Amino acid sequence: MGDITVSAPGKVILHGEHAVVYGKVAIAASLNLRTYLRMRRGTDNLISLDLPNIAIKKSWTTDGIKSQVSLPLCDPNKPVGVSGELLTKLKDIAGVDQHESDTKQLAVITFLYLYCALAAHKGTLPAIGLKVVSVQPVSAGLGSSASFSVCLAASLLQLSGIISSPAGDEVWSEAERDLINSWAFFGEKILHGNPSGIDNSVSTYGGAIKFKSGKITPLCRVPKLQILLVNTGVPRSTKVLVARCRERYQKYPDIIEPVLKSIEAISHRCEEVLAELADSPSTDLYETLEDLIDINQHHLGALCVNHPALEEIVRTAAKYGLHAKLTGAGGGGCAFIFIKPDTPLTTLADIKSEFASQKLSCWETSVGSPGVTAHSGDDGHLKQLFS
Amino acid sequence: MGDITVSAPGKVILHGEHAVVYGKVAIAASLNLRTYLRMRRGTDNLISLDLPNIAIKKSWTTDGIKSQVSLPLCDPNKPVGVSGELLTKLKDIAGVDQHESDTKQLAVITFLYLYCALAAHKGTLPAIGLKVVSVQPVSAGLGSSASFSVCLAASLLQLSGIISSPAGDEVWSEAERDLINSWAFFGEKILHGNPSGIDNSVSTYGGAIKFKSGKITPLCRVPKLQILLVNTGVPRSTKVLVARCRERYQKYPDIIEPVLKSIEAISHRCEEVLAELADSPSTDLYETLEDLIDINQHHLGALCVNHPALEEIVRTAAKYGLHAKLTGAGGGGCAFIFIKPDTPLTTLADIKSEFASQKLSCWETSVGSPGVTAHSGDDGHLKQLFS
Repeated sequence: MGDITVSAPGKVILHGEHAVVYGKVAIAASLNLRTYLRMRRGTDNLISLDLPNIAIKKSWTTDGIKSQVSLPLCDPNKPVGVSGELLTKLKDIAGVDQHESDTKQLAVITFLYLYCALAAHKGTLPAIGLKVVSVQPVSAGLGSSASFSVCLAASLLQLSGIISSPAGDEVWSEAERDLINSWAFFGEKILHGNPSGIDNSVSTYGGAIKFKSGKITPLCRVPKLQILLVNTGVPRSTKVLVARCRERYQKYPDIIEPVLKSIEAISHRCEEVLAELADSPSTDLYETLEDLIDINQHHLGALCVNHPALEEIVRTAAKYGLHAKLTGAGGGGCAFIFIKPDTPLTTLADIKSEFASQKLSCWETSVGSPGVTAHSGDDGHLKQLFS
Repeated sequence: MGDITVSAPGKVILHGEHAVVYGKVAIAASLNLRTYLRMRRGTDNLISLDLPNIAIKKSWTTDGIKSQVSLPLCDPNKPVGVSGELLTKLKDIAGVDQHESDTKQLAVITFLYLYCALAAHKGTLPAIGLKVVSVQPVSAGLGSSASFSVCLAASLLQLSGIISSPAGDEVWSEAERDLINSWAFFGEKILHGNPSGIDNSVSTYGGAIKFKSGKITPLCRVPKLQILLVNTGVPRSTKVLVARCRERYQKYPDIIEPVLKSIEAISHRCEEVLAELADSPSTDLYETLEDLIDINQHHLGALCVNHPALEEIVRTAAKYGLHAKLTGAGGGGCAFIFIKPDTPLTTLADIKSEFASQKLSCWETSVGSPGVTAHSGDDGHLKQLFS
């Protein structure tokens, strides 16, 4: 068997962040800043994991793992979460503290769990070397951990022959993707405790999904939209921001509840417009997307989850006739600027250089792109990425 | 009889601008930037009007007016609007074009109408000289024309003995103020065609009122609150901004209707908090007022009636830990910054000097102050104002 190379996208919340906590609809879309995983047959019974983005490089012997974990764990066609007992063992194997909550360390546990459950499902442990490289900023609310879990699940399921080995740049069948998604969700649970399932779903299926009260529905028709993603570089805690919004809601329920309703109406309108755009793009529809971005950005301000650095990005965008909103928890993190197809290239160059002068990282990318994808290892771009 | 000197405040909309157009509650408060009127007994049968703020200075002979208007016009205790026939005559007398819509020119007509209806109600025409000086910016949505009408009505009713002549710095009885207010409303009709009645009511009664679907209710308990009023200097048309908001409403009814509901809830909460503050001021209540200002400012952005110059004022205020919102139609015009009692004087000095460096006019003043008031002519401040 040759190398296995897969990639999976990140995600942005287009509309509905925070409102989703109160049972309102949110729309999330795949973000074409991808995580790439290359798996090589190992030698010397070694299992190695190389995560350069988070400076983690570890290896284990197959015998070492075999001696501590009773294999096989489970039926790989019936995804299941890690047991408390196994988690304790895996933390010991990884040399990770039992009370560790840093997702970087927990990423190793996610790997070990999926390796045991999927690669070793016949009781024998293949020697493999994994390298995972992400071109998206980590811990920025863009779902990098979910795309990591999705890449792990897809590559390990493929290694074991549980899902097919498609030719390069192809996606798996619906059923295969369902299986990848379920395993990725259990990977996410190790990393985040109680994930919503949005991130792994978007990363697996691509396109866009709507999410309401725990139910995820893929949107049927989604156009690919260009965005400029800008990172404020301001660290934020989702927990703190959800609490801040909750405090405002509890102090002013009569004032805030209608704002959440308005955000839900924005999500609905966004869904309609995306479907219409996929059928027949028009200037009017793009302008509607811009209006929705503007209104929701004001609403997020009303919910008290904005930040001066985010406002500054919105203001810079406005100077160039562009429209921006925060995405995710707010209070820092990232904003996206919508780039209509008729935006002049010079405008794009100018705003990028303005952000550069402000020492802000930005990425010209797209949303609505494909989910988890198998790649041919011959691709020059990928070779460079893993070199 | 000595001089008659009266003053009347302007107004700010605290909450509910634009939403009021859709039948939602608005809260308006008196603005202690006042219009002052001094009336002197004239000589030589001259009636003169001096409005230095708008560079108007006119005079007429009592005989000239008497020869063209059949007097008395009406019972001064039964306020009534100008008839079309009389309006035509008054425009001729004033030398104002019949199709004139400039409020500066129409101010002269308002004066002539109230003079004929009130000062000449016994059929004889007193010779008087009026000077009106306003310390508020005109045409800035702060109700300067209403305070002009209120001052005219109060002084002319007093001259005729229809209402009492209180000692200095006193306000009239409820019934007397009702009469002033009704006449001022008919003065406003000449100036604005179809006024809501908010401006003249606030100017007459002072304090604050709530307004919903044409009904004006004075708020019983209103504290005096310090504000810094800042003029963007950006001219705006109320009509254009109401139309812009209407366009957004019609395009996105499901999204905008909840925003209007939220604004109404803000008005209600503001009313409650003002009453509580009047009873017992507390830091918590002031902070609530700040939150309401912040949320409503975001909502006005969502309604598309903001302006970069207004946002810049809000941002400057935020830098000093202060909270600001636009007031009135938006799209330019004025913003007010709420100044909590515990705001350090140095903060106030610093922000004022920052606005000065930005060439923005600002006024340190208060809202919730008394309505139309009679003054003693001996007041040094007033003497200087009219000199």
